[in-house]
Amino acid sequence: MVPHLTTALTGPLLELERRFLAASPQIEHWLRGQWLEHTPPFYSSVDLRNSGFKLAPVDTNLFPGGFNNLNPAFLPLCVQAAMSAIEKFCPDARSLLLIPENHTRNQFYLQNVAQIAAILKQTGLNVRIGTLLPEIDKPTTIDLANGQQLLLEPLIRTPYRLGLDGFDPCAILLNNDLSAGIPPILQGLNEQVVLPPVHAGWAVRRKSNHFAAYDQVANDFAKAIGIDPWRINPAFSVCRSINFHERQGEECLAANVAAVLDLVKEKYREYDIDETPYVVVKADAGTYGMGVMTVRDADEVIALNRKQRNKMSVVKEGLEVSEVLIQEGVHSFETVKDAVAEPVIYMIDRYVVGGFYRVHTGRGKDENLNAPGMHFEPLAFETGCNLPDYRCGNPDSAPNRFYAYGVVGRLACLAAAIELERTAPETDED
Amino acid sequence: MVPHLTTALTGPLLELERRFLAASPQIEHWLRGQWLEHTPPFYSSVDLRNSGFKLAPVDTNLFPGGFNNLNPAFLPLCVQAAMSAIEKFCPDARSLLLIPENHTRNQFYLQNVAQIAAILKQTGLNVRIGTLLPEIDKPTTIDLANGQQLLLEPLIRTPYRLGLDGFDPCAILLNNDLSAGIPPILQGLNEQVVLPPVHAGWAVRRKSNHFAAYDQVANDFAKAIGIDPWRINPAFSVCRSINFHERQGEECLAANVAAVLDLVKEKYREYDIDETPYVVVKADAGTYGMGVMTVRDADEVIALNRKQRNKMSVVKEGLEVSEVLIQEGVHSFETVKDAVAEPVIYMIDRYVVGGFYRVHTGRGKDENLNAPGMHFEPLAFETGCNLPDYRCGNPDSAPNRFYAYGVVGRLACLAAAIELERTAPETDED
Repeated sequence: MVPHLTTALTGPLLELERRFLAASPQIEHWLRGQWLEHTPPFYSSVDLRNSGFKLAPVDTNLFPGGFNNLNPAFLPLCVQAAMSAIEKFCPDARSLLLIPENHTRNQFYLQNVAQIAAILKQTGLNVRIGTLLPEIDKPTTIDLANGQQLLLEPLIRTPYRLGLDGFDPCAILLNNDLSAGIPPILQGLNEQVVLPPVHAGWAVRRKSNHFAAYDQVANDFAKAIGIDPWRINPAFSVCRSINFHERQGEECLAANVAAVLDLVKEKYREYDIDETPYVVVKADAGTYGMGVMTVRDADEVIALNRKQRNKMSVVKEGLEVSEVLIQEGVHSFETVKDAVAEPVIYMIDRYVVGGFYRVHTGRGKDENLNAPGMHFEPLAFETGCNLPDYRCGNPDSAPNRFYAYGVVGRLACLAAAIELERTAPETDED
Repeated sequence: MVPHLTTALTGPLLELERRFLAASPQIEHWLRGQWLEHTPPFYSSVDLRNSGFKLAPVDTNLFPGGFNNLNPAFLPLCVQAAMSAIEKFCPDARSLLLIPENHTRNQFYLQNVAQIAAILKQTGLNVRIGTLLPEIDKPTTIDLANGQQLLLEPLIRTPYRLGLDGFDPCAILLNNDLSAGIPPILQGLNEQVVLPPVHAGWAVRRKSNHFAAYDQVANDFAKAIGIDPWRINPAFSVCRSINFHERQGEECLAANVAAVLDLVKEKYREYDIDETPYVVVKADAGTYGMGVMTVRDADEVIALNRKQRNKMSVVKEGLEVSEVLIQEGVHSFETVKDAVAEPVIYMIDRYVVGGFYRVHTGRGKDENLNAPGMHFEPLAFETGCNLPDYRCGNPDSAPNRFYAYGVVGRLACLAAAIELERTAPETDED
């Protein structure tokens, strides 16, 4: 069940993957050293794009929502990684409160919540699910399409602690990205471990902070194994004080789009790549593929029509977009049954626990595949991504490609660790 | 492919397993606390016996030799656990020297060595295999029955380090139980990490030290979850200064056999168990099922004939037996296709990574199944042993039984950790 991959420009990627495989002792040694200095987030998922000449992360999610899409055979891997994470973050925990997104009708998402709860239960924690939805004022059972049930319970806040009726957890795991801000009920919980910390939510988080940290990670890593960091790192820039409705900040946007495109064109010349460079303009805070636009020329952002401006101006929870990331577009030359595919890597703690392909039958190789209403076809990887196949040694074989994915996914996870350190609020202890 | 299990006395075991399942939050919490205080050995395997009324370890191996028997589906679990172990013991390692037993013709054992090397390579280490065999004086390739090859190389010792030609490893992993003593070539290696430490070898190790540590672990654990520790702990005693050839120490042996049998009889009465108690007399140092005897009455050890005395007097590498363990026998009521079976649990670091059944078609429920020349039929567990199945909740279902096995296996692993602490030689730093 490994999906068949076709990569148009196999040459350079093969070379990159071969480099990763040959350097795996240095890579793993380097990563071990990094994890001694930086604590990875409890869990994460990373969207990768594989253009053949480049393999890079384009988005790192700290509240991953697709655990239901992983290959069930890798459940033990998830449980083992979660045991390791719990040992580190809250060895003393016996009970854990899981707080999901406020989707009660999205069956796929609810199955993800059920899967996270199942993984955590199997580490030996008492797990219950509390909801931020005010309309759920008593324990409510939701039937899942796969025959399971999910019990959502109303949260109960005391001055210093958060729990449920008859349930006072040691740890709280967020699967809610806090796009609407940090709700008061989650503030000031100094007695309980909150994972990831609330500043990992989109109320505080900025993609530009993440990719600034990734810049550093990619540079250090590339130096350690002797590659051009651009091969794993999408160029980016950022514009603040944008108002799409009022057409404020267009010049900043156009100038930064031009700058990133110039940089990419230079690299395409250097590597003799015969493709049209493009950038992706996206909200610096936010998720779900909302507020995303593909641009091939700086002039395009000057002449946005009303519909385009409306589309760019709000993201999830109706938040206004005023800061945008201008990110080098990475073509996706991977296809599954002729449809463009991008790999998504799942991690718990510092361990890759699986992944899947996001497949879009109606989109091109330079388009955002994470779009509302998309036809989304997850294809679970057959391997855990931690198993380079040294015996066959062929980087084109799926286990080896997955090893490369696992390496770049972990680099993004490391960048998230550094990002969270840098953006942590000062505490009273400091 | 889960082997069908028949357990004659399902009642009490079901009750024990149900207790384990219900208490899994306490169990995992308790274990997490223990691992903060005690460092598990790099790897281990534990022979369990499951009598229905009792589930107990009878032997803990710190140089496990059956990785080839594990379900290949759990290779990623082994790799992840090994990554965790390497992070802890030797985060700075890039290369590792594996030193196996001196068997060059045992195809099963050689496949185990190849499997250990494969796991470690997949954590990103450079792995090479050095042999203690003096006749291998140049790199020698051995063909394995499964089509793979193993390269054995002669060890090269410098004043302070051990390596191979052109290979100076940071870490040394022993898969050799040092029954013949600690060879000079392995002594005084203060600059390199040796895993497990040489005092884990049978030159120093004693089963009685292990089971004394297990006594403490079983008592603490039983108290934590509210069970009678005897349900997971085989009673034992020890005799030193035995000489089977010269019939020295027979009285000590008879007295201790009687004492253990009396204790077991008392317990059988308490639990209304209608079976004949027995003890297993085995060499306190040693392995491979040599020097093992089943005894149902203290008188039996007085009247040993020459053949029996010869059998008991030597173990692997021709070592004389002078110290014996008298261990409560635990009937095995598990059968696979009508043959008596005992589960063997494999661990890397503190993680259960799989297991298999040792099956013997020619032996009874109260006999040692680890006997030379036995018909040995490993049956890989289908699960990783870390996944209690809460949905079905039936302790008789294989995943739940495997959870119980995984718990008792980890208790034995914890006992090994404490045993190694207690028996560690004093170092200059102390």
